[in-house]
Amino acid sequence: MSLWDEIGEQPAAVERSLRANRVAVRRVAGRLQEADFRYVLVAARGTSDNAARYAQYLWGARNRLLVALAAPSLFSGLERPPPLDGALVVGISQSGRSPDLVAVVQEARRQGRPSLVLTNDPDSPLAAAADLVLDLLVGPERAVAATKTYTAQLTLIAMLSAALAGDNEMLESLEAVPGHLAAVLEEAPGIRGIAQGRARLHRCVVLGRGYDLATAFEWALKLQELCAVVALPLSTADFEHGPVAMVESGFPVLAVAPRGSLHAGVHSLLGRLANERQADLVVISDAPETLALAGGRIALPDGLSEWMAPIAAAVGAQVFTYHLCLARGLDPDAPRGLRKVTRTR
Amino acid sequence: MSLWDEIGEQPAAVERSLRANRVAVRRVAGRLQEADFRYVLVAARGTSDNAARYAQYLWGARNRLLVALAAPSLFSGLERPPPLDGALVVGISQSGRSPDLVAVVQEARRQGRPSLVLTNDPDSPLAAAADLVLDLLVGPERAVAATKTYTAQLTLIAMLSAALAGDNEMLESLEAVPGHLAAVLEEAPGIRGIAQGRARLHRCVVLGRGYDLATAFEWALKLQELCAVVALPLSTADFEHGPVAMVESGFPVLAVAPRGSLHAGVHSLLGRLANERQADLVVISDAPETLALAGGRIALPDGLSEWMAPIAAAVGAQVFTYHLCLARGLDPDAPRGLRKVTRTR
Repeated sequence: MSLWDEIGEQPAAVERSLRANRVAVRRVAGRLQEADFRYVLVAARGTSDNAARYAQYLWGARNRLLVALAAPSLFSGLERPPPLDGALVVGISQSGRSPDLVAVVQEARRQGRPSLVLTNDPDSPLAAAADLVLDLLVGPERAVAATKTYTAQLTLIAMLSAALAGDNEMLESLEAVPGHLAAVLEEAPGIRGIAQGRARLHRCVVLGRGYDLATAFEWALKLQELCAVVALPLSTADFEHGPVAMVESGFPVLAVAPRGSLHAGVHSLLGRLANERQADLVVISDAPETLALAGGRIALPDGLSEWMAPIAAAVGAQVFTYHLCLARGLDPDAPRGLRKVTRTR
Repeated sequence: MSLWDEIGEQPAAVERSLRANRVAVRRVAGRLQEADFRYVLVAARGTSDNAARYAQYLWGARNRLLVALAAPSLFSGLERPPPLDGALVVGISQSGRSPDLVAVVQEARRQGRPSLVLTNDPDSPLAAAADLVLDLLVGPERAVAATKTYTAQLTLIAMLSAALAGDNEMLESLEAVPGHLAAVLEEAPGIRGIAQGRARLHRCVVLGRGYDLATAFEWALKLQELCAVVALPLSTADFEHGPVAMVESGFPVLAVAPRGSLHAGVHSLLGRLANERQADLVVISDAPETLALAGGRIALPDGLSEWMAPIAAAVGAQVFTYHLCLARGLDPDAPRGLRKVTRTR
């Protein structure tokens, strides 16, 4: 399986994961509703850490859970780990084999705290350390760059949010996700053209906010590992505090800016970047007025809820990055010096 | 006052802050020891958010407190804010005027949760919203780029750590910080040469781990806002998971790698980057063998504890960035399009 095959496989893979996890998600939600915790501590690395960032906003906004992202090296690198009083510990990992993440979940068990793991390998050491396990069920991911496991992680995080809230409408609307992913994939020829026009891109910022801060981080990570682009992900709020000073005429700004409660502010910022600073914008959005600001336009399908947009937007980012990689003469199936599982200690 | 004046003023400013805060820190530590909380939630933006990252590691490793970094837009941007059960809420802000941070601390009060603010303006709205306030007391910061407030924030965070632990040895060793900062400032001519040799730097990664992940983030932020460099801060653990693919011959890698429990892994990575990938290394360290790997060597004074290194290292990063700014023909006192207080909503 090549990276391109795995990108293309996402509508089917996510549909399979949605269908196969319906019962398991309800069961896990039931167990969590009985568990005693005050906040959620998520341990993850790389692409899975970007999924964690989505959980931070989604579970925060829709389930009113305070979600904190762990610093895994505090659990494996420095002296005695902190007490986890009040925490539900959630581990997210494609492979379930990163020793520092296993250390966090094992510490939860040692301290008698509840734990949940989202992984693509229910036989992994991470899964073995957890009370509750959700299996992505998207089949083995062979490409070095994670794609289908990311969109399946977001989908599972959203399913769990809906089940915890008892929100059947939200649960049903997730059935539309595979169709959204397929709609973005149909745009691949246009996205290829946008990427080919930027073959010499070697640095950029990638902006997002709220639910789509996760998408900005994931887009940047893909650009770093597949295209050797120094891509700096930032929330639009942090960007305006200082890094905006980087933007001069022609400076490449990639942005994820779908409709929703935070859209007006992001749209206004992108307008200033386009009109006052002549930035070179590539925008992923379902808002025609925001796409109109950009030289590179990656349209999301109509009818997305704000919280669903990151799943479809991730596929737009993947397709752009894949074609930029090819346009730069790099091999998307053999990024320089990477292995699939990194055993950070 | 110019930026260079404020950089140079740090030994005196931090000494003043240390002396003036001795009683206040003990009082705040006493109140916190009586307060009922399970974890610490820190709300901050920009440079202060990098200080929060230092608190995450220091309070985590030395005080065994679980420190989470808040997503401020969940408190001002999205629907109803999450419950703060079990949290001590800490706000960190130079000006104390960012409305989204004020919203987090006000929400803590509304929910009856204890709160502490570290600010350079005890008359600010942020201070007014908090139960407990620590004043940096370093005098007005006029330059757009924060310097003396950052080193004073780290020092105050370390003082509080020592007071909470009842660790008098740690408290006394902080007396040496002003001398460390002065020692780094004495190296300014050499650091200027390192920066001048890299006047055309326009993208880089900045690596750190543990306590010094904060330094990597702060160094990167300064490079972004003062030098228009796309500087990507990463923990060495995250870097090895994927972004390492960016590094080809001559690629600039800046790293903060002092002695300590995490030093061996960082040193080994830097060795591979230098020898196998011919990266252009600029290293801040007190370890001669690690400095020896680098083309650009910024030496820290001897006798630093691991947890103190970030305060001195920050000054090395500031001096490098200041001289890179000049070498690029930019004005360190007028970064493009920035104001001192950004009112993110």
